[in-house]
Order: sequence, then C-alpha cells, then structure tokens
Amino acid sequence: MDARKASESFVVMNELVLPNDTNTFGNLMGGRLMYWMDIAAGIAAGRHCNTPSMTASVDNISFKNPIKLGNVVHIEAKVCRAFNTSMEINIKVWGEDLLHQYKYESNEAFFTFVALDPNGKPRKVPELVPETEEEKRLYDGALRRRQLRLILAGKMKPDDASELKAFFTK
Amino acid sequence: MDARKASESFVVMNELVLPNDTNTFGNLMGGRLMYWMDIAAGIAAGRHCNTPSMTASVDNISFKNPIKLGNVVHIEAKVCRAFNTSMEINIKVWGEDLLHQYKYESNEAFFTFVALDPNGKPRKVPELVPETEEEKRLYDGALRRRQLRLILAGKMKPDDASELKAFFTK
Amino acid sequence: MDARKASESFVVMNELVLPNDTNTFGNLMGGRLMYWMDIAAGIAAGRHCNTPSMTASVDNISFKNPIKLGNVVHIEAKVCRAFNTSMEINIKVWGEDLLHQYKYESNEAFFTFVALDPNGKPRKVPELVPETEEEKRLYDGALRRRQLRLILAGKMKPDDASELKAFFTK
Amino acid sequence: MDARKASESFVVMNELVLPNDTNTFGNLMGGRLMYWMDIAAGIAAGRHCNTPSMTASVDNISFKNPIKLGNVVHIEAKVCRAFNTSMEINIKVWGEDLLHQYKYESNEAFFTFVALDPNGKPRKVPELVPETEEEKRLYDGALRRRQLRLILAGKMKPDDASELKAFFTK
Amino acid sequence: MDARKASESFVVMNELVLPNDTNTFGNLMGGRLMYWMDIAAGIAAGRHCNTPSMTASVDNISFKNPIKLGNVVHIEAKVCRAFNTSMEINIKVWGEDLLHQYKYESNEAFFTFVALDPNGKPRKVPELVPETEEEKRLYDGALRRRQLRLILAGKMKPDDASELKAFFTK
Amino acid sequence: MDARKASESFVVMNELVLPNDTNTFGNLMGGRLMYWMDIAAGIAAGRHCNTPSMTASVDNISFKNPIKLGNVVHIEAKVCRAFNTSMEINIKVWGEDLLHQYKYESNEAFFTFVALDPNGKPRKVPELVPETEEEKRLYDGALRRRQLRLILAGKMKPDDASELKAFFTK
Repeated sequence: MDARKASESFVVMNELVLPNDTNTFGNLMGGRLMYWMDIAAGIAAGRHCNTPSMTASVDNISFKNPIKLGNVVHIEAKVCRAFNTSMEINIKVWGEDLLHQYKYESNEAFFTFVALDPNGKPRKVPELVPETEEEKRLYDGALRRRQLRLILAGKMKPDDASELKAFFTK
Repeated sequence: MDARKASESFVVMNELVLPNDTNTFGNLMGGRLMYWMDIAAGIAAGRHCNTPSMTASVDNISFKNPIKLGNVVHIEAKVCRAFNTSMEINIKVWGEDLLHQYKYESNEAFFTFVALDPNGKPRKVPELVPETEEEKRLYDGALRRRQLRLILAGKMKPDDASELKAFFTK
Repeated sequence: MDARKASESFVVMNELVLPNDTNTFGNLMGGRLMYWMDIAAGIAAGRHCNTPSMTASVDNISFKNPIKLGNVVHIEAKVCRAFNTSMEINIKVWGEDLLHQYKYESNEAFFTFVALDPNGKPRKVPELVPETEEEKRLYDGALRRRQLRLILAGKMKPDDASELKAFFTK
Repeated sequence: MDARKASESFVVMNELVLPNDTNTFGNLMGGRLMYWMDIAAGIAAGRHCNTPSMTASVDNISFKNPIKLGNVVHIEAKVCRAFNTSMEINIKVWGEDLLHQYKYESNEAFFTFVALDPNGKPRKVPELVPETEEEKRLYDGALRRRQLRLILAGKMKPDDASELKAFFTK
Repeated sequence: MDARKASESFVVMNELVLPNDTNTFGNLMGGRLMYWMDIAAGIAAGRHCNTPSMTASVDNISFKNPIKLGNVVHIEAKVCRAFNTSMEINIKVWGEDLLHQYKYESNEAFFTFVALDPNGKPRKVPELVPETEEEKRLYDGALRRRQLRLILAGKMKPDDASELKAFFTK
Repeated sequence: MDARKASESFVVMNELVLPNDTNTFGNLMGGRLMYWMDIAAGIAAGRHCNTPSMTASVDNISFKNPIKLGNVVHIEAKVCRAFNTSMEINIKVWGEDLLHQYKYESNEAFFTFVALDPNGKPRKVPELVPETEEEKRLYDGALRRRQLRLILAGKMKPDDASELKAFFTK
C-alpha cells in the first residue's frame, strides 16, 4: 500500500445558508454546519484510503463567528495523518458575505474517520506524507490530539500520554 | 434571576434513521447525528435560560456503536452547569433496534451554548442547581471540561488550568 | 406471545419548528405535524410488537392551537390497545414557547398500525395490559373508536356497532 | 362575496415516492402522504377563499393499499362545502406503477381548513356551489361529517346531531 | 410495441413555494424549480414508455417571472415526440398567487429522457401520436430542437442540420 | 465600478450523492444535479457582482455519464462574461468514485444570472476580464451563446444574430 500525499485528499465545499439552516437570529445552526463538515471530512478520508470509512470521533469545536442567512459557508478539509486503520482530518470553515466581499473565520476542527472492509471491520489505510510547513505542523500535532482523544474516551491513562503530559507540565 | 434545577431542562428526543441519514454501510452518518444532538442541546438550553441561545462549542465526541437504518435514535439532554452567560449541556445517545428489543450506547457528549439578548450580545443566565448524584458529578466535572475547552481554543494557558493540571500530574 | 404493558411502548419526541415547517402565518403546517406524529406512533407500535408495522388508519384530528415558528413540538405516544394484528396508538401534542415558559395543547389523536410479517402480510401482536387509570380509560374507549373506524371505512354496518350505537342513543 | 363553483378549487398533484419517504418495507410512510395531502388541501382552500387559511381538522383516514418506492402518488383535492369561516376539502389519493401501467386506490379523506384575516382571526369565506352529481353528494354529506367532527371534538352533544343520529338509528 | 397518444403522458403538478425554496428576495430559486420540472418530466416519460428512464438533456430555459414565497407552482408536462430510445418532453410552468387570483407564466422548457433496460442500456420506446393542433406543432418542432441539441453537444455538424439551417438562412 | 478578473468568481463544490438524490437505477437525478449547479452558479455570480442576483436562463445541458449513489459530485463554476446587468457562468461537473479513484465527466453548462437592486430591478454589474486561454475562449463564445439564447427566447430575429448565423452558414 503506497503512501499518499496530504494534498491528494484536499476537499473544498461551498454551501449557501438557507432559511431552514438558521436559528431565530438568522444564524447558521451549529448542528447543520457539523453535518456539512462531516460530509467534507468523509470525502477527504475517502480520497486518502479509497475504501468506505465512517466518523469515529470529533475533537473539540469552538464556533467563533456566526454565519448569517444568505452567506456562503466555505469548508476546506485535508487528511493530517494516518494511523493504522484511522485518519485524522483537519477542517477549516469560513463564512463569506458576498455583498460586502467579507470573509471571516468560523472554526477549525479535527475529525477522525476509520476505514472499513466489506464486513464493517477496521482496515489498514495508506500512510500520509505531509509536504508543506502547515501539513507537517498538523502531522506532528496529530499525536498529541490522539492522546487527548484516547484519554477523553477512557482508553488511555493520563500518565501514559507522554506528549500531552509534557504540554501541561513543561 | 432565580436558580433552576437541572431536571427542569431535561429533553428527550426519538428519531427514526431514514435512508438519507445513512452512509453506504446503512449506518447513521455522524454529521446527521450531531445535527439532532445540537437541536436537543438547544432545547435544553432554552428550557434553562428562556432566552435565545446558540452553539458556542462542542467537546470531543467518540462514536462507539454505529446506529443502523430503521433503528431509533434515542437522545437525552440536560444542562450540567451554568456559567456567567453560557451553559454546558450533557447529551447521551443510544440506538434502539425495535425488532430485537436491543438498546445500545452510541455516545455521550457535551455542548456549550451561549445565551443572547435581542442585539445578539451574551446575556446572563440563571444558576443551575444539581440534585441527583449524577447531576452533581456532571456539575463538578464541568469546571475541568471548561478549562480544557479554553486551552484548546487558545484562551487559557495550560499553567492556569489548575483543575486540569491536577488531572494530568497527580 | 407474552402480553406487554402500555408503558413499555411510551415514546417522547421533541422537535423544533423550523422555517420550512411553517405556513405564511409562521405557524406549523398540519401536514408536517402529522408527519412527526406518524413517526412517533410507528416507534410506539414497534416497541409493542417488535416487528415492522405500518399506518393503517388515522382517526379524526382537531388542531386546537397553532404552534409557532421557533417553538418546540412535544409529542407523546403510547399504545392504547392491541387487537389481533393491529394496535391503536394514542398521541398527545403540545407546543412549547421556551422564551415565555408557556406550554399549550395542540391536539390528541389516535393512529392504528398493523404489524407485518416478512411477506407483508398482517401478523399477530402481543396483547396490551393497561395499568394506570388513564391507560384503562384509553383501553376501554378503543373498542368504540374501532367500531367508528370500521363504519367510516364501510366495513361495518351502523346497526352492528353496539358500543357506538349506545353512545348516540342513550 | 360571490359564491364559487366547486370545480374552481380543483387541484391535482403528482409526486414520486423517493427512498426517504419509505419505511423498511419500501412503502410510502403514512405521515409523508398526509404531508402532501395537507399541501393539496391547502391549495384547494386557497383557490376557493383567496385568503390565507390553515388546517383545522382531519377526518378519519383509512390507508387501503401501500404505495411503493418509485411509484407515483396521484392526489386530487376539491372543496366540498363552505361553512361560515371554514371549508371542507375532499382528497382522493391513488398510487401509480408506471412500469406496469397499474393505478390503485390508496385512500379518500376530508380535511377542514379555516380562513384567517391578517390578525389570524377566522374570516368569512364565499359559499360553494356544487354542480356535478358527485359534488352534490359530497356537499350533502358534509353536514353529517361536520356533526361527527364537532361531537368528536367535544363541541356538540350526540343528541343535537340530528343528521348523524338518524344515520345510526334509522 | 403500440404507438401511444401524447395525451396519455400528460402530468400536472402543483407545489407550494416554502421558505427553503427561495433566495434572499423571497423568490423561488431556479435550481429548485428545475428539480420539480425534472420530476414532472420523468413521470411523463414513464407514462409513455412504461420503463425506467433518465434525464439525457435539458434545452434552453428562460425564466420570465419570479415565483414568490407562498405562491403555487403549477407544472404541466407532456411527451412531444418519441425518437428511437428517447423522448422529448414539453414542460410549462406558471406561478399562481392564491390571494390575488393571479396566474402568471414562469417558463416553458424541453427535457429529453432516454429509456433504459435492466442493464442500464438504452431501450426502444413506443412511437408518439400527436392529436391536437398544439401537439402537432410540438411534434414537428421536435426535429429542429433535436438537431440543435446534437450540434450543441458536438454530435452533429451545423452543415448536416438541414431543418435548423433553413431556420437561420431562410 | 472596477472590472473583475474571471478567477475572482471561481467556486468549487463537492457533494455526496445520497439515497434521496437517486432514481431507481441508483443514479443521481438530473433535477437534483441542476439544483446544485444553480447554487454554485449563484455563488460565482455573487462573487463577481457583490449584489443579489437570480437565475435568468439556463443553456442546453447534455448529461454524459450518470453519477452513482455514494459517489462525489464535483462542481466548478466561473463567470465567463458580464453583459450590462447580467453574467454568463460556466459550470463543469464531474462524478468521482472514491473507491476506484475514478473521475468522469458529467456535463458542462452555461447559466445566466441577472443582478438586482433592492427593488428587484436589474442593476449594472462590473465588467469581466478573462486572463487564461480558456477564460478568453469562454469570453468570446459568450456572444454567440447570448444570440442563441435571445433567439430561442423570441427576443432576437435569426437574421440579426450575425455571430450565430456565421456559425451555421460558413
């Protein structure tokens, strides 16, 4: 199984915020945005591993600026790192006000997808090769985020999370 | 502003997994589930603060068991703790196979909603009073989760997160 | 086939009224509400008989108070009585205005579902055991409603509907 | 306010049954069908009274034949009779299997809509003039159905429903 | 395979413009309308050939009058002419303002559908027999539109489009 | 009003084909695809003119290869040329099979959008400057396509369409 470049998994989505996507303030609901982010992450994962895959976990997401009704949601997704049978995907979201030519950050998130064989069992994925400075930074941080994920899911003891521990105690 | 009991915000949702909610394996897509979880969390927040509110952040979610096409999604949401203008909501999700009378855990998550005044500015919310053992445990843990959230959002230094630091270094 | 308690089939749904669910007055459309009621009734039926089932009939529904955009729709469904291969389900609907802490009746309805075997033929369902006063009242009324249903569907002559006839002539 | 002919309110709808409209048997869900019937009834009511209106009640519906995935749903709606501020609409539904040139009855139903003024209060509607034999039959039966509706909604005593009483006691 | 009359394929659809179907001006979005037109065309095609079929091409559509939120979309579709394995369908769209009893033209379009056998290969369709003056006019024009379609798709040289050439050079 | 480069309006969309988007063959329905194309075209138009705009016309679309359930729809849209108050947008659509790393052409289309002022009247848009070879080719062809559009809409006589006439008679 040949390693793949991060850039090969790159996905761009643009969506329009319609009335049914908004709360009473006319702002995009968080759940609707996460629905689109999940689709984008799934396409990025599929481009990397060429096998069906499904959402295993979603890291902390902090919504910075509300996206308004009629604005465009601009989503970019790219695989950060492949582990044995899973992939961490970085997702960046912007809002875009077409009338005022104004583009603003909404959030940045990390989704983890696991690849599946035809029986629904986890299946090995190709390694990922980061090339740009940013891809390398995301690749390196993936280990620390993975430790946090395992601790929060109760699958790792804080003491064994050497990368993460250093972060809190340095 | 009178304090409110945790139980006053309790919300139950039951949804049916329809074909369009599923991936090629016939499993509920993570994004579709987060859409429903966000609606449930929003109703719980509204029951607590009686003012419009919107999703501020979502904590790590780990999906344990896929929910199948035709199964029921059972969601329960309850406010854990109120901070100044925000509320942390606990969400539990189960799948339910009606034909085999089988109910299985899907995930547990924490959403944070912020209350808004008519100008869209954050607005004070009532305090929350936990009553049961579980409500008290969720109330206490809310502080540690909040520190993690602030660190991950770059709004707190790891050194200042005393609750969380103790967790990693004890 | 063991009899089941009415309470075992109990279903709660909470839904948010979004823009696309409303008419030009900003009120929930009747058809959209019946869609949700049918899903709730179907889950209650499935919990009782643990076999696929489908809508056979819907009794008279009278909509009392319109539910407004942004309000919550609160639905409760419970099986009233099981006949040979069919189940009558009672559904209660309230609207809830989160901002004004105001909950109001929308309607009460009776749906009948028929259980199906894998070939799509009607299939025997367990008997239902009512326990509370209200469950017993619903259980008893089910016979009269069934006679009315059969007459309206042209499957029973008014003269043979002894329960119902007594109701009109006492 | 001039009287209007029944035929002026006539509405035809044709819809395709898509995967998300179906249950696990691949049959159109009752709730989805009632959603379409409500839209059709609303258009018929609007053609009669030329003012906004909303669903007041739905009479007993009995679903005869399931409509299959990929089949066409053919709906016809026409106002039967206008009362002071309300209109009774007759709705007929067929399924149509295009591949086998086979059209089958699904159900017949009666919806009642009430006309509203800009403040949401009931508002007078034009009288309806039936012309064909069938329109006259529907016009005459409307009185009996209205009595049944009022009794079932607890707004009329069985003893006062002379038309209906005759039906049960003749 | 017996020839079929144009009138046998006639389809009427009436849809209500809901909030999510509209742009920021409260007008029906072109894409949403084309979605409905495609469904109507598909049903007309199915009524003619009684075999599955899919959209092969769509001719120039010019949108004349925007259809407003809350108005009715009235669509009529009828097969114009059958070629070997394809059918040209004429679609007419009107908007209808129920409150002002005002019906206005939106557009007229031509869709081409190709019939498919169970392996997804094109399959012969019955011939079409036009009867009314308008059906004959549409039948005759179909040849010229087909030449234009083939030229625009790069499958015919302008020089070979005798019907069309005459139109531009007469 | 400064001229804008074609590249400034460039839009990329990636969508996943879900069950409800498909016909009985499991292929994306043409109408659903046109819905997405219209959204993409609208965003491109908005990026060029920074004012609301709506679909005025759609040119001939020929669907080459069906896009399968579970595949990705990749759409690219860019403004070709601005006329006085309207913009012609070029749209290219591919299907992408993630499992087989196979990308295939679906269709190429031209949509025309008209810019609107707050009263819904047409409004002047900036000129477009093509830069690459392909942008120049699209810019030049726009005149011929516009003549065809005007003729087909009955707003220009074939004789006056000099560009187009040359195309058919050279």
